Amino acid sequence: MKDASSSNIALLLAYDGAAYHGWQVQADIGTVQGTVGDALRPLVGATVLPVGASRTDAGVHALGQVASFVSPRPLAPSVVRDALNATLPRDVRVLAARAVPEGFDARRSARLKSYGYLIAEGAVHSPFLRGYAWHVPRPLDVGAMRAALTTLRGTHDFSAFQAAAGRDRDPVCTILAARLVRRGALLGVVVSADAFLHHMVRNIVGTIVEVGLGRRRPKWVVEVLAGRDRRRAGATAPAHGLFLLSVRYPFPLFPGAGRARRGRRLGG
Amino acid sequence: MKDASSSNIALLLAYDGAAYHGWQVQADIGTVQGTVGDALRPLVGATVLPVGASRTDAGVHALGQVASFVSPRPLAPSVVRDALNATLPRDVRVLAARAVPEGFDARRSARLKSYGYLIAEGAVHSPFLRGYAWHVPRPLDVGAMRAALTTLRGTHDFSAFQAAAGRDRDPVCTILAARLVRRGALLGVVVSADAFLHHMVRNIVGTIVEVGLGRRRPKWVVEVLAGRDRRRAGATAPAHGLFLLSVRYPFPLFPGAGRARRGRRLGG
Repeated sequence: MKDASSSNIALLLAYDGAAYHGWQVQADIGTVQGTVGDALRPLVGATVLPVGASRTDAGVHALGQVASFVSPRPLAPSVVRDALNATLPRDVRVLAARAVPEGFDARRSARLKSYGYLIAEGAVHSPFLRGYAWHVPRPLDVGAMRAALTTLRGTHDFSAFQAAAGRDRDPVCTILAARLVRRGALLGVVVSADAFLHHMVRNIVGTIVEVGLGRRRPKWVVEVLAGRDRRRAGATAPAHGLFLLSVRYPFPLFPGAGRARRGRRLGG
Repeated sequence: MKDASSSNIALLLAYDGAAYHGWQVQADIGTVQGTVGDALRPLVGATVLPVGASRTDAGVHALGQVASFVSPRPLAPSVVRDALNATLPRDVRVLAARAVPEGFDARRSARLKSYGYLIAEGAVHSPFLRGYAWHVPRPLDVGAMRAALTTLRGTHDFSAFQAAAGRDRDPVCTILAARLVRRGALLGVVVSADAFLHHMVRNIVGTIVEVGLGRRRPKWVVEVLAGRDRRRAGATAPAHGLFLLSVRYPFPLFPGAGRARRGRRLGG
C-alpha cells in the first residue's frame, strides 16, 4: 500500500539510557522509542514509531542502536538527522541516517548484535563512571573470567542466562564472539550473537564475575549452561554497565561509524 | 594552639562538577567544599571546612583535587576515606587520604597544578560526553593549535587570559607544560603551571580554538598575550570541558594515584 513517494529510513542512534525506561514505548513513561517518535512527528507529518534493532532495558545505553521507520512523505536522510538532533534531548543523538530498501526492518533484518559491559575494579568508584560501569571493589581474575567466557561461544540453549520471567522464545542462540578487554582498572566484556535472550548479557556478566572473584571455577559456567536453569547462574549485573555497541545487517548499513566507534571505545 | 593529638589530613578528591556551584562554600548553594565539610562533621566532631588546592568554578570537574583539614581529634586516614565515601554523594569521591606534616595547607603548599580540557569535534556530539567535553562541530587544525599553545609556555603576564572581572592578583604565572593530544574526534588540552588566573585555562582554550578554526593564525596568540587585554582573546570555553587533573607539592603526596590516572586519561 506504500506509494512511490514514501521512504524507508534507518537511523544510527546513541543514547545515555539513565533517564529512560528502556527503548520500548510505554504509556506515561519516558522511553527512547517514544522520544524519537515524538521528534519524528512534525518531520514526517504523522505519528511514526521507529522500530529498534534492540529493545534495550531501562537504564541500558547505546552507542549504535539502529532504528527504522517508513515515512509517508519523502525525506532527505541528512535533513532527518539534523532536524531530529535539533529537537531531541541531548542524551539521545542521531549519529547518521540513510535511505534503506523497501522491506528493511531494523529489528527483523538484523543478523548480529554486539553488546559491551563495563566493570570497574578498585576500592573507590570513579564519579565519572558511576552511571556507566558496575563497580566491583575487589580484584578480579581476568584470566579465569576469559576462560569462562570462552566456554559460552558457539550455539547453545542459553535458558540458564535468560531473565527468570521470560520463557517465551527459542532459547537457542549463537555467540560468535565473547571477549574481555582490560584498560587499567576498567574491564570491558563484549559479546556478539545472532540473538539475545532477555537479560542474557547481564546474567553472563554476573556469572563470570563470580568466577573472577574466585567463588567459582571457570568450568562451573559449563555446568550452569548445560543445566538450563536460571537459578544456578550468577546474579543479574546492573543495567547501567550495559551498552548496545552495534548491529550488523546482510549489507553494510553504517560502515564507517560502527568501526571507528567500536575500535576506540572497547579496544575491539 | 594545636594539641599533640590533633591531626592534619590531606584528601585526594575526584568529582563530577555538574551538580555543584564550584568548590568554594557559599550560603544556601551546593558546593563541593560545603559537601565535603558536611560529611566531615560527624567524623571530626566539629565543623571543619577543608582547604582546596584549587577553587574550581561552577561545573568544573576534578580528577585529582587535593584538600586538607586539621582535625581536633586524631583520625586514621583510611577510616577518613571510607567513612567519607560512605556518606558523600556518588559524584564526589575520596580517592585517598593521608596524614600530612603540621603546617601543610593544600592551597598554600601547592607548587604546580595541571588542568585538562576536552574538546569534541564531529558533526554530532556524543551523549556520553555532553557533560565532559566542549562540542566544536567543525574540523580543527590541531597543528596550528599546538603552535599557538607553545607560544604560551614560560613565564608571562597572563592578564589577557584573566576573567574580565578579576584584576586582584599578580598576573604573572609560569606555564611549565602545555600540550594537545588527539584521540580520534576527542582533543585534550593539558596545561601545567605554578599558578592560574581566574578562567585562565578556559580563556586559553577559547583562544586556541579560534586558531584551530582558521579564524586566526598561531602568532596572533603571541600578540594577544603581549597586549594584556582580555578583550582581544577568544571567548571563554564552557566550564563542563574543564578538569583539574592533579596538584603537585614539594614532596610526593599521592604518588601512585596521580600518575596512573593522568597516563590513562589524557595520554600524558
